[in-house]
Order: sequence, then structure tokens, then C-alpha cells
Amino acid sequence: MRPVDLIRQKRDGGEHSPEEISSLIEYFVRGDVPDYQMSAWMMAVLWRRLSNVETSALTEAMMRSGSVLDLSELPGVKVDKHSTGGVGDKTSLIVVPIVAAGGLIVPMISGRGLGHTGGTLDKLESMKGFNVNLSTAEFMRVLKQTGAVMAGQTAELVPADKKMYALRDVTGTVENASLICASIMSKKLAEGVDALVLDVKTGSGAFMKNQEDAEYLAKMMVATGRTMGKNVAALVTDMNQPLGCTVGHSLEVRECLHVLGGHRHPQPQREDLRLLSVELAAWMFFLGGRVPSVEEGRKLAEELITNGKALAKFREICQAQGASDLSSLPSAKFMTKFLAADSGFITSIQCEKIGLANLALGGGRSKQGDIIDHAVGFGLHKKLGHAVKRGEKIATVHHNTRGGLPEAMILLGEAYTIEPEPPGETRVLIKKIIEDP
Amino acid sequence: MRPVDLIRQKRDGGEHSPEEISSLIEYFVRGDVPDYQMSAWMMAVLWRRLSNVETSALTEAMMRSGSVLDLSELPGVKVDKHSTGGVGDKTSLIVVPIVAAGGLIVPMISGRGLGHTGGTLDKLESMKGFNVNLSTAEFMRVLKQTGAVMAGQTAELVPADKKMYALRDVTGTVENASLICASIMSKKLAEGVDALVLDVKTGSGAFMKNQEDAEYLAKMMVATGRTMGKNVAALVTDMNQPLGCTVGHSLEVRECLHVLGGHRHPQPQREDLRLLSVELAAWMFFLGGRVPSVEEGRKLAEELITNGKALAKFREICQAQGASDLSSLPSAKFMTKFLAADSGFITSIQCEKIGLANLALGGGRSKQGDIIDHAVGFGLHKKLGHAVKRGEKIATVHHNTRGGLPEAMILLGEAYTIEPEPPGETRVLIKKIIEDP
Repeated sequence: MRPVDLIRQKRDGGEHSPEEISSLIEYFVRGDVPDYQMSAWMMAVLWRRLSNVETSALTEAMMRSGSVLDLSELPGVKVDKHSTGGVGDKTSLIVVPIVAAGGLIVPMISGRGLGHTGGTLDKLESMKGFNVNLSTAEFMRVLKQTGAVMAGQTAELVPADKKMYALRDVTGTVENASLICASIMSKKLAEGVDALVLDVKTGSGAFMKNQEDAEYLAKMMVATGRTMGKNVAALVTDMNQPLGCTVGHSLEVRECLHVLGGHRHPQPQREDLRLLSVELAAWMFFLGGRVPSVEEGRKLAEELITNGKALAKFREICQAQGASDLSSLPSAKFMTKFLAADSGFITSIQCEKIGLANLALGGGRSKQGDIIDHAVGFGLHKKLGHAVKRGEKIATVHHNTRGGLPEAMILLGEAYTIEPEPPGETRVLIKKIIEDP
Repeated sequence: MRPVDLIRQKRDGGEHSPEEISSLIEYFVRGDVPDYQMSAWMMAVLWRRLSNVETSALTEAMMRSGSVLDLSELPGVKVDKHSTGGVGDKTSLIVVPIVAAGGLIVPMISGRGLGHTGGTLDKLESMKGFNVNLSTAEFMRVLKQTGAVMAGQTAELVPADKKMYALRDVTGTVENASLICASIMSKKLAEGVDALVLDVKTGSGAFMKNQEDAEYLAKMMVATGRTMGKNVAALVTDMNQPLGCTVGHSLEVRECLHVLGGHRHPQPQREDLRLLSVELAAWMFFLGGRVPSVEEGRKLAEELITNGKALAKFREICQAQGASDLSSLPSAKFMTKFLAADSGFITSIQCEKIGLANLALGGGRSKQGDIIDHAVGFGLHKKLGHAVKRGEKIATVHHNTRGGLPEAMILLGEAYTIEPEPPGETRVLIKKIIEDP
């Protein structure tokens, strides 16, 4: 195989064989296909797309570029979830303990935040002592001991993805469903799971702005998972406002503890985090064969919250990963109110602006390796459709310095749109469920 | 400017400003835009194309990436021609001395052959002592002394093109009219010419297989040249058979000496080389302001052949570049006849096969740097439409070893199609003239 022939084939709209894709990835990882050929090929992929068969082949080739976890020594079904990411999306911290408390095994590998998005690993690290950088041996120890683990990717897993992602980021080749699918699925499948639930976000705060693109990606990921013999389903969910009522690392952990503690909110609009977490857990129970229906899965998830077993499991996982004292979550020194400039209804919330406001406070990363302040962030008191009066508190800004505050306040002002009439559209949290690709 | 933003802009179908293109090329040449970004950008260009304005900006940016020849100290109009390349295309060796003999200045920079195509520099080097590797000072000396020069590109001219072309070759990004246009025109304009005639080949043996693509490229090059204040016209010409009656370096030089010597062939089909050379020279005279019409240019060109001045000028240029004895052209040791396998009419000649047959004899390069045998090649006795009898000689193979002969014979057999009926279509040598883009 000459790499240039594969590039030309894709450029001209041709289809690669699985063997060709496998060679391309193998040669790329060992350095025989240089970056400049890979980036040209990826741009040709954005142009001509990959078929489902090609996408599955790419996913498998990437997965096999490193080691694949062997969880066969652990009895029981292994399940996981993955979210395409959004602002305030913290369901993993709720879902993982629920599902592990329900008897399934959850070997979750997560990422860090960049730009306006937060990352699960950063949220976990706001708990003092929580270690996400586990060796494979430590990973297995925690998993055996607690039935779950929440850690970062090891160097051995999917090296092709690390190398490709770094290149995609600087060559304008991020935005392709097949490349996104292969990046996500290769990592999840390298975890050695039997079943997987995907939370594909759509809306202003999501990578996929419109539902059609989100569904296309969801179907492709479900098809890829199925091809590789896994039980996979995808939920296409709303990301037109931050999920839940907080943005910021330790604030989000507190909110998760609140949900796991069984607390409910009288306003149904503010129940979105709990509802989505229960739904994702229900699907994991169902796909993992723990319950005969998603409805039964919902009941089980609710029960494990109510009887305290999910919260106990969360503490157990935290302890196994080094965080024994959850009361020591950091708090910011200052709290400043963000007030409504007008009376009316909240008709739109630009999630990205809220993520950038958190970045301005020091709670995010502009580039990889930046140090973040876990204590800063926002309590969000109003959701889409809520009525507000001029001067009423919309959010509470938690900050440690005064430096980033003006910028954060401006961004919050840009994030919220207040109009005289309530929004016509009713928000649907779960827009579509994709079981069959 | 962040390069990734430019890549994304082009990927999404946007248009760059001339300043953006200028920065991209500047940063690329000095190494601040890495190859992997340039190749992704070029693939995005193949996808979304460049406008005429962007193409002109790219041409100018590439031209300015190195030094531009300053010919202002030479009195008179500077003109050149460029061909997009074909098999047996040797017009430069005829046109340059005609035009210089007519009083215009011709600072021609040419390239070498690769694969099935021949290169002007290689043809010149079949003349013992002919030096094409001139420094800028030597280039100027020959030009001043003889009014013409035929040499290779110096390192100072258009470094952007060298770097881009090497990358395009291995990333499947050769086939785009704007990139081809910018590559050709940046080099020709860096010669400091006032007028330029383009010979854009179309047909089975050309880079542009169909006339529509050839015209598109021709118009783009004319537009680019005009934008940069040059007198430019393009002739779209036939390359469905080798030009003239020889393929192979020293054989082609001999054929040029024959044409310059005023010899004519009784069969009009075999006059194509002379006709096209006169036509190109006529346009150069016209665009260079030497004559008031192309018709007058033709007359002048014919006259300069007939009165021997063109041939004398050719000898003068050769002598100035180190080749004083044109009778010492190398000849191959063996001659083998290639015979017609059937009786009928020659209805198609695949030029590429003939080029590859020459490569098989050692008369070409598989890769850059290969040493070539200048003596080998073919005398081609039959043109398209000619009647042949089974066993009649179609070509004479000139070879120095027996090694490559069987492969060359097979390729020749594949090149010629003989059918019972003559081809319906009459061949037109000059298919279109493009003066206004």
C-alpha cells in the first residue's frame, strides 16, 4: 500500500477496504505514514466521508493500535456510558455509582476539559486526594474492589487516537462524524465493555448544533458498536442550556452528591440532571441485561438512590481512588450575584458563553496543561422558560480573585436572552433514542 | 493569522483575502506552517477550489517567496512560452531560437522529465557540453550575449513551489487547476517576462484528459497573468498522439534541428511539430509587440527558418551554454523495428504508453535523480489516421541494451490501436485560443 494512493482513492470518492484502513492506521502509528499524509487523508475524509463499514474498520484499527483491557477475570457484565460533551454535564458522577451499586461493572475512562467544556477527570480531582492517573494494575484493583473505576486514559490504550486527535485539532479535521465516532468508540471498546450507552448532545452548547447531525453521529456509533459485537444504544439529548444548576468543578460535584442523596427540586425544569442520569443508568441496566426493560431500569436506579446505595457506592469508589473526605471540597472566596437586566422570560441560554465565563474565572483550560481552579463557577438559578424580574438573581458567581470577574459578567450577560414573551417551544430533554442504526 | 483558521475557512467553502494567502505561503516557506497543515489546506483547496482572485494572490505570493529576476538592464521585450507537457513535445527548442532571432528576449526556465514525460532540460543535455545548471550571473551572461537562455530553475527562484510540489506529489493534491496555475505562473513570472504564451495540452497523453479541464486551466492562467500585468494568451492543443515523429532525447533534438533547418514533410500529418512551433512563435511575436498580428508573426517565424537565422541562433545559444558540436549527438547501438500486427488504420495512440516504453529503454526517470540514457527512443513513422499493412513498420526502436526491449515492444503494442475503418474525427492541432479569460 502506498499512502498517496489511499489519499487519492478517498479524494476521488472511492471506498477503502478494511485492510487498507488497518494498514493506514498501523503505518501512521509507527511513523511510516507521516503527519502530512494523514492530515491530507483526513481532509479527504471530511470531503467524501467514510461509509459505516469504513468507520467500523477505522474504529477497530484504532482500538487495536494499543492494548485492549482484558476484563474477563471479573465476573459480570461490563457497561459504560459516554457523552459527546456539554456545559454542566456531570451525569457520569451520578450514573457510575448507581450502575455499580446495581451490580454491573463500570470501567469508565474519561477525559479532561478544554476551552468552554468541562471534563469528568477535572471534576473528580476537585475532591481532595482523588487520583485519576491510574496504572493498569491500579485500574484493575479499584474495579475489582468497587465494581467501578473513573480514570484517565493510559498511554497503552489507543495511541492512534492521541496522535490523530492532536493532528485533527490543528488541521481543521475535527468535524466529521466518522472520525468522531472512531475516536470515541475505539477508546470505549478498548475498555473491554459488553454494553455502552451514548449520550449525544445537540443544541447551542453541543458540538453538534443541530439534531440531524447528532442523530447521524448517534446512528453511526450504534452501528459501529453493533458491528463489533457490543450492545449499544444512543440517547440524543438537549444541550441548549447547561445541564443541572451548576457549572464549575467542585460546585458540580456538590450537585451530584445532592442528586445521589435523593434530593429533588420542586421546579421540574431543574430536575434535568437527575432525570437524565436515571435514564442513562436505566439504559445501562437494560443493555447490560440486569433488567428486562428500560422502565425496570428506571425503577432500579431510583431505588438505588432512595435506599442510599448509590451514594454509598460513590463514597466507596472515591475512597478506593484516594479521596476519603468529601466534605473538604474547595469553596471560592467570593460570591457575586449576576442580576437580570430586564424583566421577562429566559428564552435562550448560550452554554458556550457560560463555559467561557468559567474559563475567565480560572476554572478552565485555554490550552492543554493549564492549571485550573476547581472552586470557581456558577450557581444557575434560572432555566430556560423561567420568568425573571429586572434585578432578580439569575446566577451566583463563585470566584477567588476579582481579576476575571468583569469578563465573566459580560459573558453571562451575553449568554442569557430575556424577552417579554415566554419561549413557544417546550424543551424536551431526551429528543430521540437510537437502538437500531 | 492562525493557519488552522485558514484551513477551516477553505474547508467550509470560504474565500481567503490576498493577505491571508500571502501570510500562509510566507509562513510555510519559513517553516512556521508545518507540512501537515499545508497538505490539509491543499486538500481543502481541491475540495472547494480557489477563485481567480485567490489564485492570483497565491501565484504572486509564491513568486515573491524567492528572488525575481530583474531584466530591466536588458533593452527589449522579454517573452516566454510554457507547455503543460506531453510526449514528444519539443517545441521549446524550435521556438526559443526563432523568437530570439526575431529580436525578442527569451529567458526560458524549464524542468526535467519524470515518469512518462520528457523534460526540456534533459533534451538539451543530450547535446555534449550543454550546461543547464546556470548561476544567475551565467544566466544573465547568456541572455545578454544571445538574447535567449534555456536553463533550470535556480534555488533562489520560487522556493515555495519546490516545497509545495514535493508535498503535493505525496498527498494526492496535484490535480487542481489553481495549484497547477500558481505553480506554473509563479515560476514564469519570476523570470521577469513581459509576455507569455501558454501551450495547454489536452488528450490521452496530457495531464488534462478532456478539453473542458484544459480550457478551465488555460483561462485561469491567462487571468492570473493579466492580473499581474502581463500579456498572456493560451493555446489549447492536441495531445492525443506524440508531437512530431520522435520520442527520446537526442532523437528529438535531431528532429528540432531538422525543423529549424527548414525541412518539410510531404505528409501534412507529420508537420504538427513545425506548425505548432511556428504558431507559438507567432503568438510570442504578437504578444511581445514585435508584429501587429499573429498572421504577421507566422510570416516572420517562417522567414527566420527559411533564411537560416533561427538555426544560427540555436547554434549560438548552444555554444554560449557550452555545446559547440551539435554533430556529436549520441546514437543508440541497436535499432529494432516495431511492426503492425494488423492491417487497417491507426485510430488511437496512447502517448503515455510510448513515454513508458522510453522509460523501459532507460530513456526516462522513475524517480527524481535517476540517470537517463539520452540516445534511446523511437522514430514514429505513422500518425493517427494513417493506413498500415500487417507487418509494415510503425516505429523504429533505438536501444542500447536488449534488457528493456521486450517491455518496450509490449508497451508499443498496447499504445497503437489499428482498426479496419479510419477514425471518423479529423484531428485539429490547435483546438482553442484563449486571449480573454
